[in-house]
Amino acid sequence: MLKLYYGPGACSFVPHAALEVVKAATGAEFETQTVKLHKGEQHTPEYLALNPLGLVPVLVEDGKPLTQIVAICDYLDRRFPQAGLLPVEPWQRAQALSTFVWMNNTVHPTFTHVFRPSAFAAGEAAQADVKALAVAKFREHLERIQAMIAHAAPWLLGDKPSFVDFYALVFLRWGGLAGIDPATLPVYQAFVERVAAHPAVAAAMAREGIRLDTYKPK
Amino acid sequence: MLKLYYGPGACSFVPHAALEVVKAATGAEFETQTVKLHKGEQHTPEYLALNPLGLVPVLVEDGKPLTQIVAICDYLDRRFPQAGLLPVEPWQRAQALSTFVWMNNTVHPTFTHVFRPSAFAAGEAAQADVKALAVAKFREHLERIQAMIAHAAPWLLGDKPSFVDFYALVFLRWGGLAGIDPATLPVYQAFVERVAAHPAVAAAMAREGIRLDTYKPK
Repeated sequence: MLKLYYGPGACSFVPHAALEVVKAATGAEFETQTVKLHKGEQHTPEYLALNPLGLVPVLVEDGKPLTQIVAICDYLDRRFPQAGLLPVEPWQRAQALSTFVWMNNTVHPTFTHVFRPSAFAAGEAAQADVKALAVAKFREHLERIQAMIAHAAPWLLGDKPSFVDFYALVFLRWGGLAGIDPATLPVYQAFVERVAAHPAVAAAMAREGIRLDTYKPK
Repeated sequence: MLKLYYGPGACSFVPHAALEVVKAATGAEFETQTVKLHKGEQHTPEYLALNPLGLVPVLVEDGKPLTQIVAICDYLDRRFPQAGLLPVEPWQRAQALSTFVWMNNTVHPTFTHVFRPSAFAAGEAAQADVKALAVAKFREHLERIQAMIAHAAPWLLGDKPSFVDFYALVFLRWGGLAGIDPATLPVYQAFVERVAAHPAVAAAMAREGIRLDTYKPK
């Protein structure tokens, strides 16, 4: 049986929700293991044996670990094609992957600069500079995603919810933590509420114990 | 016919070398277009119509653009399976993709901090801080790749050269520009010299007009 190691609210939510989609479409069960990132459980010897980089998620099959959400999600799509997670037509699939990879190599790391600026600069003033610039860039990325959502039909990749929808949900939650009021991105906010109401997504959110209301007005 | 827009020495080298592998394996010709990044050609209206983000590479087929090297390379693998660019066995393929994605979302952006720290901090002192930390991190990443190379048989994914080998070559060239002497990574350096001698890679390097000797001793 597949087993997913995830951190609540982290990017591991993307394969987590996808596994719920797979389960609904195929009946394939999966196991989960919470990794409490704020308690440093990703740095235990047991976890580092699964992923020497100390990051979530890890997907384990037959005792063997697979890291990186793009690789995990591509594997899930190939293993369970009946779940319809990525388009079958090659060019459409390539465009879907392009969006997913952009989220992974650009939007996601921008938030890392907000959340953990000490990974990018040593001095306190420099860290504050890095964080401020990253918040502004993260908002630009969210606006770009909102522009994509204007063409969602009804999901970003078409008629089935998929990785990029789940990632979009994660990013808006992170935006709230970065002080970005989701009400200022109303099309995006309405979309994420719809994503969160999908039964597979709702199941993953319930297991992780996460909600959409991360933004706290000052 | 496929057409690749590339910047000499940029990450677009990865699909460029892959297209040469495809050509050698299948006879499929391709076109190329140089984008002179130092002259800002990625910001012309014509180029932004292909990629609104103003980044290389873009792969064009039938007038339609595809961006993001992971998406482009996955597409090339699916379109030309006889080129053997990624393993066929699903778990091996997933592991290969995991390494490729890590290079794309971690190693590559670390160099971006070295090359263009102004994208990550506003103040001059903060930019210098970002750059110094990124050079140290980039070296760690190169050492991790060197450890992978110790198991190459003879290429990183097995018996055929592929995306991750080409990316490894790009990174060591970038390391030289960042002041990292490749001679201090002798296993890596010897590997990259072997990659560069492969006929497909040599053809792409000749077209881009790039060499391995980017490091200049002070």
